[in-house]
Amino acid sequence: MELYMCKQWVDFFYYSNSKAMVNVGIIGYGYWGPNLVRNFFAAADCCVKAVADGRSERLQQLGKVFPTIKGVQDAEDIIYDPDIDAVIIATPVSTHFTLARKALAEGKHVLIEKPMTSSTEEAELLINLAKQKGVLLMVDHTFLYTGAVEKMKYLVDNKELGNIKYLDSTRINLGLFQSDINVLWDLAPHDISILNYIVRERPYSVNATGITHTNNNIENIAYLTVNYASGFIAHFNCSWTSPVKVRMMLIGGDQKMILYNDLEPTEKVKIYDTGYSYLNDEEKNKVRIDYRTGDIHVPKLATTEALLGMANDFISSIQEKKEPKSSCQLGLDVVRILEASSESIKHNGREVILESSTSPVTHTIQEVLI
Amino acid sequence: MELYMCKQWVDFFYYSNSKAMVNVGIIGYGYWGPNLVRNFFAAADCCVKAVADGRSERLQQLGKVFPTIKGVQDAEDIIYDPDIDAVIIATPVSTHFTLARKALAEGKHVLIEKPMTSSTEEAELLINLAKQKGVLLMVDHTFLYTGAVEKMKYLVDNKELGNIKYLDSTRINLGLFQSDINVLWDLAPHDISILNYIVRERPYSVNATGITHTNNNIENIAYLTVNYASGFIAHFNCSWTSPVKVRMMLIGGDQKMILYNDLEPTEKVKIYDTGYSYLNDEEKNKVRIDYRTGDIHVPKLATTEALLGMANDFISSIQEKKEPKSSCQLGLDVVRILEASSESIKHNGREVILESSTSPVTHTIQEVLI
Amino acid sequence: MELYMCKQWVDFFYYSNSKAMVNVGIIGYGYWGPNLVRNFFAAADCCVKAVADGRSERLQQLGKVFPTIKGVQDAEDIIYDPDIDAVIIATPVSTHFTLARKALAEGKHVLIEKPMTSSTEEAELLINLAKQKGVLLMVDHTFLYTGAVEKMKYLVDNKELGNIKYLDSTRINLGLFQSDINVLWDLAPHDISILNYIVRERPYSVNATGITHTNNNIENIAYLTVNYASGFIAHFNCSWTSPVKVRMMLIGGDQKMILYNDLEPTEKVKIYDTGYSYLNDEEKNKVRIDYRTGDIHVPKLATTEALLGMANDFISSIQEKKEPKSSCQLGLDVVRILEASSESIKHNGREVILESSTSPVTHTIQEVLI
Amino acid sequence: MELYMCKQWVDFFYYSNSKAMVNVGIIGYGYWGPNLVRNFFAAADCCVKAVADGRSERLQQLGKVFPTIKGVQDAEDIIYDPDIDAVIIATPVSTHFTLARKALAEGKHVLIEKPMTSSTEEAELLINLAKQKGVLLMVDHTFLYTGAVEKMKYLVDNKELGNIKYLDSTRINLGLFQSDINVLWDLAPHDISILNYIVRERPYSVNATGITHTNNNIENIAYLTVNYASGFIAHFNCSWTSPVKVRMMLIGGDQKMILYNDLEPTEKVKIYDTGYSYLNDEEKNKVRIDYRTGDIHVPKLATTEALLGMANDFISSIQEKKEPKSSCQLGLDVVRILEASSESIKHNGREVILESSTSPVTHTIQEVLI
Repeated sequence: MELYMCKQWVDFFYYSNSKAMVNVGIIGYGYWGPNLVRNFFAAADCCVKAVADGRSERLQQLGKVFPTIKGVQDAEDIIYDPDIDAVIIATPVSTHFTLARKALAEGKHVLIEKPMTSSTEEAELLINLAKQKGVLLMVDHTFLYTGAVEKMKYLVDNKELGNIKYLDSTRINLGLFQSDINVLWDLAPHDISILNYIVRERPYSVNATGITHTNNNIENIAYLTVNYASGFIAHFNCSWTSPVKVRMMLIGGDQKMILYNDLEPTEKVKIYDTGYSYLNDEEKNKVRIDYRTGDIHVPKLATTEALLGMANDFISSIQEKKEPKSSCQLGLDVVRILEASSESIKHNGREVILESSTSPVTHTIQEVLI
Repeated sequence: MELYMCKQWVDFFYYSNSKAMVNVGIIGYGYWGPNLVRNFFAAADCCVKAVADGRSERLQQLGKVFPTIKGVQDAEDIIYDPDIDAVIIATPVSTHFTLARKALAEGKHVLIEKPMTSSTEEAELLINLAKQKGVLLMVDHTFLYTGAVEKMKYLVDNKELGNIKYLDSTRINLGLFQSDINVLWDLAPHDISILNYIVRERPYSVNATGITHTNNNIENIAYLTVNYASGFIAHFNCSWTSPVKVRMMLIGGDQKMILYNDLEPTEKVKIYDTGYSYLNDEEKNKVRIDYRTGDIHVPKLATTEALLGMANDFISSIQEKKEPKSSCQLGLDVVRILEASSESIKHNGREVILESSTSPVTHTIQEVLI
Repeated sequence: MELYMCKQWVDFFYYSNSKAMVNVGIIGYGYWGPNLVRNFFAAADCCVKAVADGRSERLQQLGKVFPTIKGVQDAEDIIYDPDIDAVIIATPVSTHFTLARKALAEGKHVLIEKPMTSSTEEAELLINLAKQKGVLLMVDHTFLYTGAVEKMKYLVDNKELGNIKYLDSTRINLGLFQSDINVLWDLAPHDISILNYIVRERPYSVNATGITHTNNNIENIAYLTVNYASGFIAHFNCSWTSPVKVRMMLIGGDQKMILYNDLEPTEKVKIYDTGYSYLNDEEKNKVRIDYRTGDIHVPKLATTEALLGMANDFISSIQEKKEPKSSCQLGLDVVRILEASSESIKHNGREVILESSTSPVTHTIQEVLI
Repeated sequence: MELYMCKQWVDFFYYSNSKAMVNVGIIGYGYWGPNLVRNFFAAADCCVKAVADGRSERLQQLGKVFPTIKGVQDAEDIIYDPDIDAVIIATPVSTHFTLARKALAEGKHVLIEKPMTSSTEEAELLINLAKQKGVLLMVDHTFLYTGAVEKMKYLVDNKELGNIKYLDSTRINLGLFQSDINVLWDLAPHDISILNYIVRERPYSVNATGITHTNNNIENIAYLTVNYASGFIAHFNCSWTSPVKVRMMLIGGDQKMILYNDLEPTEKVKIYDTGYSYLNDEEKNKVRIDYRTGDIHVPKLATTEALLGMANDFISSIQEKKEPKSSCQLGLDVVRILEASSESIKHNGREVILESSTSPVTHTIQEVLI
């Protein structure tokens, strides 16, 4: 078996002064699980020790492709395994909190798939617990690691768009009705994480409307508006019942604007040298608006696999005790908007003010562990 | 001048038993005016007698292209001209009511550009007045005369989509900020008229949010949701500040779905043999949803110019005393939704219930004519 | 008629020192004729006096839209009209030579629609005659006046593409089978004129193949390769029997490459920062080739109407006795390639060497005027 | 190792009456090799025993992903392995003949990657040898196993296009200059195999032109026309130096036409209800041509992986001694056209008549095995 042994051990023997290896266990081997295994397998300084899934056919599948990884049926075999340093949770959202709480309580580093939890309360409890235990808690918002999002953040940070005014996202396709969360909780986390990553201003409130076309009260079409005190506005159009797949985002500044089409194979980000300005014509008691359209620029983007970037960020953040790009705070902020959207839908689109996240979390560790 | 005389007189001399000619006057020769003149010039049984515009350079322009049409500066020269049977109003929205009221009071048939009026009250007053005077009142919702909309209505009416579930429209581009109406009043009338034409159910309520990025309190980006008692939902995304032009509408049924892209030169309407169904799995207390994707069909559409179809409908509805496709009632229903959207935006997205249009209009003709 | 008098006379009265007006007559009022009339009507220092077309219904049509222009049935009424300074020939190709020869002999300036003539011999005779008479002879290759072609020429002239290596053009659609010329003579002149305008090197030879699917021996599909001594290559794919319309041209350099899609409403020209280089690896007796792909740039293009630019160039070239952009020499060079393509098709694709255009034309003016 | 044992043995133990397993060895583990291994691993009744590649790093790579497959450095370890029934050759074209000849001589079934050989002579020798040995010889033209090509063949076979008139293919992109074969031998086999699969008429002749922009005399841009006695014409545009990737094929009939765009994720095949017809108008001594454009239909295509279909066809053709879809005869016909294209390029585009493939192959088995 020498040939097939964990490549990380090779690294270890060769570079004796290297950083400590991180042994990870992954809970959940469903749709996303194989991608996680493959990328953590490829990540530096990391050894995938075990994968847990209750379904034996999933474990058989695992065994075929990754014969060196142990398959277990019980998540606790990972959580309580003393050889495992970090636990990755890729199970349905409703189970995130309980699993993560247990793992954190055991002193494990934890990575949770998006969305982080079912409520802000749960998310804040986990953040608090991780702080107390001195371990890393991170959320997998993979899109933050794409070349496209990196480029857009760079452009916004460097004021190349001027003052940004709006973000408009459409993420629609046919299929994959979830049975536990609505379409916003399922699809919007990608776009809200991008919003929160790129826009520094804290959102003020949300409005959301939606409809269910099955009789399970889970919206399959929903629309979300996020309002900001400055006049910035963000809008999200999500659907599981579109005949065409659309993954399109506009980010508009007063100097330049971006069209981000994630389905384009090579021209994902287009930068339009397009802007507008206005003038108060006080004589005529009118506002005069001027437009400008210019060249379009399509930058070449980094093409490294986003999920691998995320995996490397998780491992190196553990090693270097640094804040990862896709932090638990960002994960909480995404949940905060989702939670408010559900509240707004329940009240027929009424504006729901977002509470500040700086409110002191008063739960004690004892409450959390009950 | 024999050669260039009004072609309709030729028709008249040749076909002595023909329908009565309709003499029209057009008020407003701005952006849309030349298109109206050109198409009413080409319409059957119609003679464009005069065009009014306060700007002398516009009348000069008219004279160059249409030397046989009289240009006048005062709208009243058209309204009170006894030789004119029908008045077409292509001026800013805020002037629609006053001009239309005067023309109707004079017993003229009236065609108003979209949106019909600034309020439902104004629209209802005009409808009432037209009824009392026994003349035609019509609104120019040009899109109803396109091959694309006709095809979509046909498909919906013939249940080819199954039960329709949603309509989702995006109409965004850069430019043309209006100074009197917001982006919904400017762009959404097209799509709302299509909605009202295709969907028979009366809408129940609306939610709308929006933002202004100039300091004139006129929204340049706005989002509108129209809710229906049956669970049908319609959503409209309008913007004057998009770097790209998008004209896209989805209409989804449970049997088939339509993608209508008005910017496609030839493939404007695509019909997806795509559907979904659900089953209550009572044992597991779950809903099971099934999808189906199949062929796509792109029908060839009628290519006659929509505006000419509208013009012909106006003329023939006068002659035959019939209800035109783009009726004043439909025009009123569009205004009703727009008015409610403004109310919702003012109240931060709150749901606004649409009043029934069957409420008796109690204003007397005297009140209207004050 | 004061209001509708030729706008140029207004110019004349106001600017007494202005350049001499050019009175033009247009022969042929078919598909392209109205566009010519409209644009010469709008051109500076130009008065459209008369249009000739044998079909009375075409003249009636003219009268409706342009009541100030005289319609005549006989082309000679234009050619021999002493008030007319310049003659525009928009008739079938086979008639170009005879009409142009007569007009030139009368001392008129002449503009001919593309392709210039049916043979290089005819083209050379006309060029010679124009020289002897001291008048302007020009060919309407409208595309040279588009913002897209201007931009591409600028990029090539400024070596932004590096050394250019190939041009590849596809111009296909359904319809408009011509009955006198094959698909290359009909569609390729546009692309060949762009080739000749942008690429300074003289072509060396051509190969062409094609097929006729009707029994009139006129190819409806044809392929043309133009070879250059330097290794540059140009290829043209033309068809009247494609279900889709394609207007696509690639121009490749070793530093950058251009994609020109004339059907794109706004992004007609895309510049790819894409190149390749090679190295002789003498050790391994191999050539090593490296690629590079980078950003894409979409320049904003001038949006003035190309045909108006062409009309203005014709008039000002007459006034200033200068060489127009779309010169008769370029028109001849296009015919030279077309003529060779027919020769190659006739000989089953055999290479046909292009004769130099510098051969002295020995015909006397007497021979030409026979 | 029980868990990871060859799944085919599981099949074997369960279905004792099943068809005989086929043990395969694969020679060449370069760009395409891993795809072959993965798909033959997944194919029914097949066990991948060994892979040969001279480069040890490739074998290490193999070992990581497929620990149960033996890696060997010498191709002969596969060819002369008595446990191996079938040999798959995925090496550079120049080596195909020698390897295949040895394997056939050993009585192995053989699958060769496209293009089959460097010459028709080699291909015919192999076909003859396979016949004498009574084993299967097949060429991997993967595209024949795609849903798109199957659908197009069905439409042509069922005369839904009417009489087919032309095939026009563009296969261009940047990169992957080959050092042993030109761009036609590299890219065109895909399209020529589709041509030969769909069109039953034997081609009559070819014309080809091309250019090399490196100094190795290997064309990086080339154009190929294939002529047919009936008037059908096929054209292929291939390039390694295009800034954009294009994979587009048109197939035109007189009743309907197909656009096949392999880069479209879902709408690969579009069927245009577009046709034309002509009439001899003997009076005017002219041909009158009529067009018709109608609906477009986009059929849903089978989405099974083409390479797996090819693998299953190879295995089942061995088992059932049947002719595979991608037969050696079709492979030979592709080489025949490629060989003629090289001849035509060498003679500056001259037409090269294709020899009939029915000429008796007179080589004896002894000559072949030298």
